[in-house]
Amino acid sequence: MATIDESSLRKALSDKQSALEAQGNAVRELKSSSAATKSEIEAAIEALNALKLDKSSIERQLQALISNGEGAVNKEAFRQAVVNTLERRLFYIPSFKIYRGVAGLYDYGPPGCSVKSNILAFWRQHFVLEENMLEVDCPCVTPEVVLKASGHVEKFTDLMVKDEKTGTCYRADHLLKDFCNEKLQKDLTISSDKAAEIKHLLATLDDLSAEELGAKIKEFGIVAPDTKNPLSDPYPFNLMFQTSIGPSGSSTGYMRPETAQGIFVNFRDLYYYNGSKLPFAAAQIGQAFRNEISPRQGLLRVREFTLAEIEHFVDPEDKSHPKYSEVADLEFLMFPRQEQVSGQSAKRVRLGDTVSKGIVNNETLAYFIGRVYLFLTRLGIDKERLRFRQHLANEMAHYAADCWDAEIESSYGWIECVGIADRSAYDLRAHSEKSGVQLVAQEKYSEPKEVEKLVIAPVKKELGVAFKGSQKNVVEALEAMEEKEALEMKVTLESKGEVEFEVCTLGKTVTIKKNMVNIQKEKKKEHQRVFTPSVIEPSFGIGRIIYCLFEHAFYTRPSKAGDEQLNVFRFPPLVAPIKCTVFPLVQNQKYEEVAKFISKSLTAAGISHRIDITGTSIGKRYARTDELGVPFAITVDSTTSVTLRERDSKDQVRVDVEKAASVVKEVTEGQTTWADVWSTFPHQSSTATDD
Amino acid sequence: MATIDESSLRKALSDKQSALEAQGNAVRELKSSSAATKSEIEAAIEALNALKLDKSSIERQLQALISNGEGAVNKEAFRQAVVNTLERRLFYIPSFKIYRGVAGLYDYGPPGCSVKSNILAFWRQHFVLEENMLEVDCPCVTPEVVLKASGHVEKFTDLMVKDEKTGTCYRADHLLKDFCNEKLQKDLTISSDKAAEIKHLLATLDDLSAEELGAKIKEFGIVAPDTKNPLSDPYPFNLMFQTSIGPSGSSTGYMRPETAQGIFVNFRDLYYYNGSKLPFAAAQIGQAFRNEISPRQGLLRVREFTLAEIEHFVDPEDKSHPKYSEVADLEFLMFPRQEQVSGQSAKRVRLGDTVSKGIVNNETLAYFIGRVYLFLTRLGIDKERLRFRQHLANEMAHYAADCWDAEIESSYGWIECVGIADRSAYDLRAHSEKSGVQLVAQEKYSEPKEVEKLVIAPVKKELGVAFKGSQKNVVEALEAMEEKEALEMKVTLESKGEVEFEVCTLGKTVTIKKNMVNIQKEKKKEHQRVFTPSVIEPSFGIGRIIYCLFEHAFYTRPSKAGDEQLNVFRFPPLVAPIKCTVFPLVQNQKYEEVAKFISKSLTAAGISHRIDITGTSIGKRYARTDELGVPFAITVDSTTSVTLRERDSKDQVRVDVEKAASVVKEVTEGQTTWADVWSTFPHQSSTATDD
Repeated sequence: MATIDESSLRKALSDKQSALEAQGNAVRELKSSSAATKSEIEAAIEALNALKLDKSSIERQLQALISNGEGAVNKEAFRQAVVNTLERRLFYIPSFKIYRGVAGLYDYGPPGCSVKSNILAFWRQHFVLEENMLEVDCPCVTPEVVLKASGHVEKFTDLMVKDEKTGTCYRADHLLKDFCNEKLQKDLTISSDKAAEIKHLLATLDDLSAEELGAKIKEFGIVAPDTKNPLSDPYPFNLMFQTSIGPSGSSTGYMRPETAQGIFVNFRDLYYYNGSKLPFAAAQIGQAFRNEISPRQGLLRVREFTLAEIEHFVDPEDKSHPKYSEVADLEFLMFPRQEQVSGQSAKRVRLGDTVSKGIVNNETLAYFIGRVYLFLTRLGIDKERLRFRQHLANEMAHYAADCWDAEIESSYGWIECVGIADRSAYDLRAHSEKSGVQLVAQEKYSEPKEVEKLVIAPVKKELGVAFKGSQKNVVEALEAMEEKEALEMKVTLESKGEVEFEVCTLGKTVTIKKNMVNIQKEKKKEHQRVFTPSVIEPSFGIGRIIYCLFEHAFYTRPSKAGDEQLNVFRFPPLVAPIKCTVFPLVQNQKYEEVAKFISKSLTAAGISHRIDITGTSIGKRYARTDELGVPFAITVDSTTSVTLRERDSKDQVRVDVEKAASVVKEVTEGQTTWADVWSTFPHQSSTATDD
Repeated sequence: MATIDESSLRKALSDKQSALEAQGNAVRELKSSSAATKSEIEAAIEALNALKLDKSSIERQLQALISNGEGAVNKEAFRQAVVNTLERRLFYIPSFKIYRGVAGLYDYGPPGCSVKSNILAFWRQHFVLEENMLEVDCPCVTPEVVLKASGHVEKFTDLMVKDEKTGTCYRADHLLKDFCNEKLQKDLTISSDKAAEIKHLLATLDDLSAEELGAKIKEFGIVAPDTKNPLSDPYPFNLMFQTSIGPSGSSTGYMRPETAQGIFVNFRDLYYYNGSKLPFAAAQIGQAFRNEISPRQGLLRVREFTLAEIEHFVDPEDKSHPKYSEVADLEFLMFPRQEQVSGQSAKRVRLGDTVSKGIVNNETLAYFIGRVYLFLTRLGIDKERLRFRQHLANEMAHYAADCWDAEIESSYGWIECVGIADRSAYDLRAHSEKSGVQLVAQEKYSEPKEVEKLVIAPVKKELGVAFKGSQKNVVEALEAMEEKEALEMKVTLESKGEVEFEVCTLGKTVTIKKNMVNIQKEKKKEHQRVFTPSVIEPSFGIGRIIYCLFEHAFYTRPSKAGDEQLNVFRFPPLVAPIKCTVFPLVQNQKYEEVAKFISKSLTAAGISHRIDITGTSIGKRYARTDELGVPFAITVDSTTSVTLRERDSKDQVRVDVEKAASVVKEVTEGQTTWADVWSTFPHQSSTATDD
């Protein structure tokens, strides 16, 4: 396909429209002119029709380009097929369904719950156990003071607009985004300049202030989508669920918006528990809450969700990682800031190269990126649809050193599922300041070090004379100067004898004279270094990972008769909700006893399974179990040996009754592979039982 | 010890007091009388002193009896030792400690979190997996309508009083209870009648209405404990944390007070998922919330806690259980209603006998009692301090068929940790009514059954004439009659021609005549029976179980030098937070490499462990690891074989480096026992390394 860009198509369409109008005028003139011959008129009409055809052709090309054509339709249909299967087989259930539900709240039904607990168990194994992390478990109910310190009370908001007549609430940025996307995808008449402007707006939507968003909504004439009523100006809505702790009503609390704060406030105890040594990581799995204004995107944007978070505390002067070499050679899709800005796409690179080139800020951050990659792909996330995208400068908090999101491609587009951020010392400093408890680490020197320290000594007598009642504010401001500022002041005072100095707490500038302050560098012996550790935080949205996994694992294949499409989830045994089903081939007491014997052995081996003794055909039973993603099925068709079938290949082998449970255990727990089983046991012709 | 009861001691004390007063008067009279001789006076004083001695002796006896003497002091000291160890080793941490915490909120620190997740994993294995239960996972945020149906909005309350000046809130029953206990334990002057009255009040405290509680508080002159200010009348305070769902503020929600409701509202889908077959059980593990008025008792009464609940749905006409025989022969402490009322104590009985004698209502209930017993004792709960107590009639909800609590004895007394209730059809009926969705099961008959059915046919024409606008209410009331009432009406109408009939919705009684309604029994063929299943609900307070387990597992033993008491938690490997520690005997690169090799093997085997390479003495390191309840320790003291030590016996064996991890895995996972290990491997003299 020729690479025709949207901009030149819009230009061509606009040119063609002008030509068409001109030709239309020409035809009308010819028709009204007595001098024109019939053939002249026919030729002009023919030219007009040719122009119309050209225009339609350009419109079709443009339409195809901007709407992703069939792709969008296919994605929608695919998602519908996945979601239908998930709901029908109770992977999840809209919560409180019999009461018509609550937007943004979902239950995990039996197989979904099982997938979730398998994923969490593996998370514990892969991160907590293998890395010797300190796991904690803190309450969801959180007092206001903690979330004031963290900034959530002030900043955990979305901008909201209200339908001025009905009071219905909308997220302001979503309305603007929908309007822009609609405009770009459906309106062929906008100029390429206008299209570029709208695209720029979409890209910078997150940066808009309430005022700017409001102005855009007015400019575009956006109204309430349900009623077409006018909308209020945007205003911030705090997304935390608020409540009251205790009976007095005077103690405000919130349901935590993340689990991280519970770890930060315990830093001092955890550091001590770890033998007062850095680095160490603490971890927490638990519920978090976000009172979305109007939840969309099904399981991806919900009001209550499970987070799994790690806070890795590290010396800011040494962010190396002892196990970095174990991940440095991994290769996968990465999408650095620079390549996003220059319009490229994610590329497959060696992780270690991004560190040596300075793209990823440090080894520890890279180590976690690598571990997250291994975690997600082990779950069954398709590595071609997984990328690590670096935050752009405008996405990142001012204090963050670097930040990468593991994004998984789904029918909704690329979805942020894990955030891996170097948050520097921000969180510990914030809680130190608010609580008055120092959350710091010490490094004891093997021998005392001589250091130069800046000493700022205000001369209170002179300051008192000069500033009287404001003396205290001036003294504090002088003492609070950063080293650089103080040294500049020293230079200025020595050269000019006085300096202008801004005192924030007075809201004005004062003149400081040479005799009012002494600024000196002095040498001191220090026995230890006291510092606030940096925090590297991998934060996992478990529900989002699960939903993306559902999409990546789902496929359909024709039934044997070819008359219908059967659904399959290709879950690896690690996450499959049930590892094995056991079917007696026919309803028969002997076979049922064998099935029960195998079931008991599987229970003893800790392998989750189900017996299916319904009388339906074995083909139907396989279809039912494939749809739940069960990797293995045992059909009891004799009293001495049974048929063991693998889900995706549909290959079948014969195994002795006594061995059946242990073979399933080994292949389920990864001690052996299906290929090994296939080469060890006699094959069974699939025609006998499958479908 | 002679059995002297409290009542006779109070009587004796009161008699002695009277005698003392009489003798005191006698002495005064003698002294003021001129006739008395010195020796007469001295004799009277001697008698007075003897009486005083007697009185003190009775006081001491009474004091000892009512305060449990040393027992109470020892319990308090024991609890303090446990709690100190738990807090120091971060088993738990008061939440948000750096902000001075929030009453009733606790974090699990690393070892506590690990114990908790081990217990939950075992719960899943023991109940969900072995019984093929359907596990679900529902949100904590719950809309009001659900909790109105369940009765929590109306009835989930405690009675509260307020300090009338400061507004501080107290639980009314706690204040009264404290007052009564204080009175009984410290006031030696109250009569035995008064003591009996107070004891009766304590026993019936839970049944008191707000008015009765208020009256008692007034009668006893109870004031606010902190300020001595007067108290308000008691009024109900709802214990749910309230919040608002969505941005409009119009949709009230609560943090769920239990996980059960999430299962009930999904009954229809779960029943279908189970192939429309009964019985089946659904289960849920999750957070629940209870906004306590003023939490006490540390980890036992908290504002947020983990519940694990099972709802076993069963045909009310058949509560047998196929696996009942597996538990019927278990023997343990049971405390039926009758024996509580008659003042006996819990006795060791065979579970099966309680069913055959009709003490436990049905097999399914008994099956779960047995399974709970196995679960708790496998965790390490002392079976001598575990009893199953049946609810008294006044404790049980009116709809419940039977209810037993697994109570565990701790330093706080007997604590309810698991409730096992037959809740009949109450919950499903409540949600059916409120939601309008029928939550029922069907039993298809193999062939149609002929049944007699009552048909109530109001004659609307006649009713219209008689009652006009109220006709509809009368019709509905007639149709809603229970069978018994309708048959009585039929008899009366036939004998007297008319009957008085109360119409609730009209708030009055109307006269129904013979021509206004036809009541007939008719024979019908039915193909199925439709019914609301009964629910048997085992509900586990995980935090309470954990705390009691901490107390049961804790003991102290002298250090080898005998100069201090060392703390030990005798956790079984199943729940131990870490299964094994690995120590190089001395700081030495070769030993550290061996330690790392063993650590890698343990990680590969999925065994949680820690390496301790601090330079402290091996004795100190053992003490540290005993205090965390780590069952096994490996000391690397050569490069070919290591010392493996068991925590409680302190026995040590020598094991090859290559075998160390697999031996620990086997003994940890229960494939082998320490006794087997002890008889297989060469013994190591403990003097070499221990202490």
